[in-house]
Amino acid sequence: MKNFQFHNPTKIIFGDNTIKSVGIETKKYGKKALMVYGKSSIKKTGIYDIAVKSLTDAGIDIIEFSGVQSNPVLSHVREGVKIAKNNNIDIIVAVGGGSVIDEAKAIAAGAKSDFDVWDFFIDKSKIENALPLITVLTLAATGSEMNDGAVVTNEDTLQKFNINAVSLFPKVSILDPTATFSVPASYTAYSGVDAITHILEGYFTSDDNNTPIQDRFVESIVHTVMESTDKILQKPDDFEARASMMWGATLALNGLTTAGIGNYAFPNHMIEHSLSAIYTIPHGAGLSIVLSGWMKYQYKKNPEKFAQFAKRIFNINGTSEEETAYNGINALIDWFKKINSPTTLSEMNIPAKDIPEIAQNATMLAEKWGLHDYTKEVIHDILTLCK
Amino acid sequence: MKNFQFHNPTKIIFGDNTIKSVGIETKKYGKKALMVYGKSSIKKTGIYDIAVKSLTDAGIDIIEFSGVQSNPVLSHVREGVKIAKNNNIDIIVAVGGGSVIDEAKAIAAGAKSDFDVWDFFIDKSKIENALPLITVLTLAATGSEMNDGAVVTNEDTLQKFNINAVSLFPKVSILDPTATFSVPASYTAYSGVDAITHILEGYFTSDDNNTPIQDRFVESIVHTVMESTDKILQKPDDFEARASMMWGATLALNGLTTAGIGNYAFPNHMIEHSLSAIYTIPHGAGLSIVLSGWMKYQYKKNPEKFAQFAKRIFNINGTSEEETAYNGINALIDWFKKINSPTTLSEMNIPAKDIPEIAQNATMLAEKWGLHDYTKEVIHDILTLCK
Repeated sequence: MKNFQFHNPTKIIFGDNTIKSVGIETKKYGKKALMVYGKSSIKKTGIYDIAVKSLTDAGIDIIEFSGVQSNPVLSHVREGVKIAKNNNIDIIVAVGGGSVIDEAKAIAAGAKSDFDVWDFFIDKSKIENALPLITVLTLAATGSEMNDGAVVTNEDTLQKFNINAVSLFPKVSILDPTATFSVPASYTAYSGVDAITHILEGYFTSDDNNTPIQDRFVESIVHTVMESTDKILQKPDDFEARASMMWGATLALNGLTTAGIGNYAFPNHMIEHSLSAIYTIPHGAGLSIVLSGWMKYQYKKNPEKFAQFAKRIFNINGTSEEETAYNGINALIDWFKKINSPTTLSEMNIPAKDIPEIAQNATMLAEKWGLHDYTKEVIHDILTLCK
Repeated sequence: MKNFQFHNPTKIIFGDNTIKSVGIETKKYGKKALMVYGKSSIKKTGIYDIAVKSLTDAGIDIIEFSGVQSNPVLSHVREGVKIAKNNNIDIIVAVGGGSVIDEAKAIAAGAKSDFDVWDFFIDKSKIENALPLITVLTLAATGSEMNDGAVVTNEDTLQKFNINAVSLFPKVSILDPTATFSVPASYTAYSGVDAITHILEGYFTSDDNNTPIQDRFVESIVHTVMESTDKILQKPDDFEARASMMWGATLALNGLTTAGIGNYAFPNHMIEHSLSAIYTIPHGAGLSIVLSGWMKYQYKKNPEKFAQFAKRIFNINGTSEEETAYNGINALIDWFKKINSPTTLSEMNIPAKDIPEIAQNATMLAEKWGLHDYTKEVIHDILTLCK
């Protein structure tokens, strides 16, 4: 195990009928809230009404800021920052999935700064402070509800970049599994893929093989997310499955499974960010494509870990470690197919001729993240395995 | 899964050579520290010198308070409270194992109160506030370094009682596995037992069987603590094994594995507290005795969960669920024997004729914890299985 620091101060309020506590929690941090959300879905499901009533009952003055899109964009973040500043907002309340929470985090940072918010994404400025944030989660996938990160796309430069700062941890996150009952089958599948990819990135790229607890926690989450996804696709209002999926997705990216694993990377997210920056595709759909190719590119560099994955997740035992590893990869790809998440670029109508452009775009994030092994050529090779 | 709140604000600094950061962390909370520790062991290992140098270099004024004993006692806590108050202490720095940290927590609460500190233990007063606490851990076992609880024995009444309060979470806990290299084989074994018992209490007594992530996390920790204990007993300075044991013991009682499992109890700790309140025995040694008997008393009430344990931990498959469960219990008892942790009262020279007195003592904690099923007669029956 490698040296690490772990500090996750987010308070989780989890369970049925918990959204009504948003008002009382918000009141602890201020009186004037910017309520950030997406489009009409929270109004259809009734979550909007519950949240607004709870905030109003607690005496909170609400300024609404809606229209966050999937893969949130910089122009909208800048608009939110302006509104937050003009209205002397005390606290941000994000009601939605990872896109809404990510945009809310960017606004929270931007509202406390004199710089343009994009400066934080390109490491021109450092986030020293942010407005407090409370989240009400409506999609179990990104883990943003219990971590310090956010991803936003700059539409002008087609950069889908991230920020991380300790002040971006939500103060409180409310996780009500019933809020996800209406998530359709497609996004349920993509969410499962997202959570699984989050944890497998560290698992497969760590430079430390002496991490038995972390490995087993990862495997615990993969097992649970897979079985929960399968159950939800059979029965969308299966509370227990939605609950396990929700808590599993949160734990998949809250720092727990990567604490102590040393150096690790997010190559699949790096490449996928280029896909969803350039094309209108769901992040999770892009991830099942990239991961399907990347694993085949990667496994010979760490066959032992890929074989462990195959054995412990799929109970596969090949005649050699490499064979076991390879069969485990195919078993995961088969599961992606079973849940109807794409495993090739062509399924999303992304032509092979675009691969050079995607690879070129991905090098921007490779540089930001210091992934020097991921040259344009290497990324090209990986994407070729995703055709 | 049941509704839950999870909020663990302790910052963990983990790894080799991390103790030297205690000064800089302490400085964030004040200038005058009460340094709480046990007897001479931290001086022998050199940890005392490292901590004092770090604190002094950071400009911290140190008041020392030593002599904390295993299973810390109220009279010594009261002495610490007096010293903390008389010296206007800003922050407490605990250097030691669970006993030292527990006593430091009690002092932290007592120092901010006008009541006698024992009032908190008997629920006569509620802990509203406490001095900030930083810990340097030297024994991986109790989990106190990342939770809000503490246990102290009142020598006059022979009550070994607990307190819990959000203000008792350590602000920072420094976990250096090398600090545990000198822990002898006996206490290494007892520590493994303690960690395993902490997580199995919730696992076996939860009233919710829809907790797949929590179950798998528990099994992950049990697997890892068992294999780490075995390795450490072979090679006491095995850094990787000490590291996994240390992080495993912390995760075993930081709220993670019980979040969402509904109602659960600590019957083994309840009964063991009476053993170590009445006799001079290590807590972990008492636990392997009680757990060995309690599991046999309990398993027919939840054979499914005990069978899951047998299958997933020991790969046991009996001809029936009850047989599988029973064989799993015996496999764990065999492991206790292998690591030389006692499994019967007689091994610790506790005569069967004392069982009524122990049972009577345990009813005090049963009442405090609201474990109404654990009558004197039931506890007597369990202890009879521990003879």
